[in-house]
Amino acid sequence: MRVVVPFAVRSPKTRLAPVLDPDERRAFARAMLDDVLAAVTDAGGDPEVLATAALDVDAPVTVDDRPLTPAINAVLAASTPVAVVMADLALATGPAVEHLLDASGDVVAAPGRGGGTNALVVRHPDFRVDYHGASIRDHRRIAHDVGAGWTEVDSMRLAADVDEPADLVEVVLHGSGSAADWLAERGFELDDDDGRVGITRSTDD
Amino acid sequence: MRVVVPFAVRSPKTRLAPVLDPDERRAFARAMLDDVLAAVTDAGGDPEVLATAALDVDAPVTVDDRPLTPAINAVLAASTPVAVVMADLALATGPAVEHLLDASGDVVAAPGRGGGTNALVVRHPDFRVDYHGASIRDHRRIAHDVGAGWTEVDSMRLAADVDEPADLVEVVLHGSGSAADWLAERGFELDDDDGRVGITRSTDD
Repeated sequence: MRVVVPFAVRSPKTRLAPVLDPDERRAFARAMLDDVLAAVTDAGGDPEVLATAALDVDAPVTVDDRPLTPAINAVLAASTPVAVVMADLALATGPAVEHLLDASGDVVAAPGRGGGTNALVVRHPDFRVDYHGASIRDHRRIAHDVGAGWTEVDSMRLAADVDEPADLVEVVLHGSGSAADWLAERGFELDDDDGRVGITRSTDD
Repeated sequence: MRVVVPFAVRSPKTRLAPVLDPDERRAFARAMLDDVLAAVTDAGGDPEVLATAALDVDAPVTVDDRPLTPAINAVLAASTPVAVVMADLALATGPAVEHLLDASGDVVAAPGRGGGTNALVVRHPDFRVDYHGASIRDHRRIAHDVGAGWTEVDSMRLAADVDEPADLVEVVLHGSGSAADWLAERGFELDDDDGRVGITRSTDD
């Protein structure tokens, strides 16, 4: 199946500013993208990147500088079935993506923490996305409104998009790809000295 | 399979103090326990509650007022196989628990967000728990040290333990049992007016 991975080239992951500078955010976002593309390929999907600007990456790239919602809706209007998988799922693995792609249904969704929609499989020609706010709830309603069946897949790995510093804990604990390596190389490690689990960055690197 | 659900009777869920008073925290914790017991039963498991004090609930209750780790290790020392499922998994469903109980392996774990271990199936007699800090990492190591195989199940529903106010968003979005009903009855609803998803409590209830 075609699997579209949208990617913001210029200023990705601004909410990681407390722990990563702009160059680091770009490099880390790119490492996560590489992990997602590898997971999609492992799952037997055909990944392509929908990027806001030109990008050198190991997959076909389409450039569309519109915001996420109209850019994805143009993809959905052109042809289905198609899957949409976010580029910041640093815990995604082949089996997790396979679980998504293999689930039957007109619209299959993997919810993200905080109400997002981290991955979709769209097999119904009339379904459209709206990624603002608690999008998983809106997508459920949109599917209902166009008469499309709605299925949710239950995956911690697909639920864990990486937006904020606290999310890096999950990558250090459960990641096994480029993004986890990138963090380890830059000195990020777990800190659970006080019984609450956080992340620290060693200053001697 | 025996499924032990540990439950703190007296002062549960203190980190929800910003949004729930002590009586409400007790009632909400109890609603989550009821949901977990129902999910275990739906999955074909035999739930029993390991409580810190006497409790009237629709399952057998054993009282052990020790901290979580020694109380669970006494259970493991007495007999295996046994599963341990946390009482605050308000998103747990029968299929999610069934996925856990059906997974093969000496030790099967469902990681929680932030490094916790939200559910375990223990089939190896020498495995013991240590719930302090990033316990999923410690449990992986303990399994290795005793020569037990280690399997992780990938479930958003089992990963979502409810400790902090932000976790209530997940219950409102994805819960379908007593805990979700309890929150709705007390006026909790989503707030995504500014594009970030939070929770508000209506003041007219």
